[in-house]
Amino acid sequence: MTVKPSMLAPGSVIGVLGGGQLGRFLAMAAADLGFACHVYCPEPDSPAFALADQHMIAPYEDEAALTRFAEQVDVVTYEFENVPAATVEVLEALVPVLPGRRALETAQDRLAEKRFFSDLGIEVAPFAEVNDAADLERALGEIGAPAILKTRRFGYDGKGQARIGHRDEAGPALESLRGAPAILEQVIDFDFEISVIAARCRSGDFAAYAPGRNIHRNHILDQTFVPADIPAELERRAVEICRTITEALDYAGVIGVEFFVCDGGARLLVNEIAPRVHNSGHWTLDGAPASQFEQHIRAVAGWPLRDPCRHSDAVMTNLIGEDVESWGKWAAEPLTAVHLYGKPEVRAGRKMGHVTRLTPMTPDAGD
Amino acid sequence: MTVKPSMLAPGSVIGVLGGGQLGRFLAMAAADLGFACHVYCPEPDSPAFALADQHMIAPYEDEAALTRFAEQVDVVTYEFENVPAATVEVLEALVPVLPGRRALETAQDRLAEKRFFSDLGIEVAPFAEVNDAADLERALGEIGAPAILKTRRFGYDGKGQARIGHRDEAGPALESLRGAPAILEQVIDFDFEISVIAARCRSGDFAAYAPGRNIHRNHILDQTFVPADIPAELERRAVEICRTITEALDYAGVIGVEFFVCDGGARLLVNEIAPRVHNSGHWTLDGAPASQFEQHIRAVAGWPLRDPCRHSDAVMTNLIGEDVESWGKWAAEPLTAVHLYGKPEVRAGRKMGHVTRLTPMTPDAGD
Repeated sequence: MTVKPSMLAPGSVIGVLGGGQLGRFLAMAAADLGFACHVYCPEPDSPAFALADQHMIAPYEDEAALTRFAEQVDVVTYEFENVPAATVEVLEALVPVLPGRRALETAQDRLAEKRFFSDLGIEVAPFAEVNDAADLERALGEIGAPAILKTRRFGYDGKGQARIGHRDEAGPALESLRGAPAILEQVIDFDFEISVIAARCRSGDFAAYAPGRNIHRNHILDQTFVPADIPAELERRAVEICRTITEALDYAGVIGVEFFVCDGGARLLVNEIAPRVHNSGHWTLDGAPASQFEQHIRAVAGWPLRDPCRHSDAVMTNLIGEDVESWGKWAAEPLTAVHLYGKPEVRAGRKMGHVTRLTPMTPDAGD
Repeated sequence: MTVKPSMLAPGSVIGVLGGGQLGRFLAMAAADLGFACHVYCPEPDSPAFALADQHMIAPYEDEAALTRFAEQVDVVTYEFENVPAATVEVLEALVPVLPGRRALETAQDRLAEKRFFSDLGIEVAPFAEVNDAADLERALGEIGAPAILKTRRFGYDGKGQARIGHRDEAGPALESLRGAPAILEQVIDFDFEISVIAARCRSGDFAAYAPGRNIHRNHILDQTFVPADIPAELERRAVEICRTITEALDYAGVIGVEFFVCDGGARLLVNEIAPRVHNSGHWTLDGAPASQFEQHIRAVAGWPLRDPCRHSDAVMTNLIGEDVESWGKWAAEPLTAVHLYGKPEVRAGRKMGHVTRLTPMTPDAGD
């Protein structure tokens, strides 16, 4: 037998914080490997509940509920990076929490994140800390306009951001953040964005999927194209940066690293990391032998990783809000996989599902 | 919009009779298409329950429970062919039951099944009805020995069968069936077994996967190899026979058709059909863009079918009983998908999981 003592045996219970679509796919991946899945989420009717063995509806601040949850699981992971530090503290005392506190602390704070990259010698957009008007004045002096003022915490999908086109827009931008600690970042004139989805185990095993090229609409990911159609050398650099980041964090799980490709590929800047499975990795459900969700469960369970190769080229398109009403059109495409998240209410900006149009590398495709 | 009025909308409820591993994979496929899944099964702790929105634990003879179940779902399907006729009758009065009563009646009775094939001009092993010793004597005279005496109903994985090597073994064989109505079949000296897994919609859409070559161990499927390594002409004939069968049954759903290949492919005999997803189609979870489980859910929901092409060659191996203890060995193979069914108790002969070793048709495999 090649079972390492650190490998969680089938039948063990994987705890997941967060019950959205990411938690839902994690629950299915866990079940398929023979694990039981327990989902913790404050929202009733969370999409992941139906696919999990158990669930608990409680606030992330409820210490008694967290303690009960920790006692019912063998490891805890999460589908979102804004898990409160106090939540992790309660859980960590009772059960391993992976990918790990260091990754969470880094990803939760844009300033800590940028400093972490800089310390590793990884290029990022010029940035500066901004706590008040004087800081902002000074930062604009260094970085220049246009720049983007962002809250250090709790920003996503373009929320908590204000663009400063000219220096005289500094006041309103600062006011719009309502005094939240912030960071000013230079606006990067990038050619396009790519992301690397990779998995790492505590043993040091590392497996990166081919990078995807991402297109956003209204600050929300719209489409991911794989392959990204970039030179092999650029792909190699992006993957190596991703590996460097995971090693520095002693990471266990799947990570998403977003890059800006500039100057025709001569410059590669890291934008941000997501210490979790990532929307731009959804294509792996259909285009690769092993999905990012399976890799994540394997990594947090201490199992060896799967081969991250691709068997199909893929274009993933998010179905946001009313986009989901076009499900019938997508369902009629024989080489398109349709994934709907079972959310009862359609709301503007809400991720309702995604579709992945495949081009398999097979002699019998399209028969 | 290309939504046909007969297409079940996301959010509709798919009812599944049976909560084993087939029901479990059907539940995941239904969820991924945005359906809710409701599983009906008499056994507590059924593997499918954890992956379904709802479940009901009740006997298949419980009319009140069946009526409640039917009122809670939009369509009913099943993971096993021995659904009692009375169960279907109760459900059918309230909700569509697919693949349909005709397919069930045919598959439940080996004699009806063989006659159905013969009437369609499809070659089967010589057979005769056996209800008593006189029938058996006459049948052996026609068919000769060796032959196999099988109960007409409720046989699976070699159960309810007795081999008659010489005519003087007829008495004990008949006794072993304890008076159950039976059928005598000639023992076929076949080269190997193949199966075709195909989906059909009521609209007439038909999509067959490449046939698999099946190896049995102790009368239970052990391995399926895809491709089956047979001539294209033989593959074409097998698929056409499968299509003929589904059309004659006005079938909706996935079907498994087992064939004996004889005389180096000159003869192709149908052994039996399974009016449901089939163990020999499990490779489609990992080797094809769309699995048999997705195809089945689409067909019973009235959705168009996916392309049944293959992106990887596959060898599926069942983990029966204690085989499952080798999970760690399989988990260490980077191109092998591990599927464990979450059954708490290991029992001899019990299907505990399966693994699929893949050879993707991709330039970056094994990187």
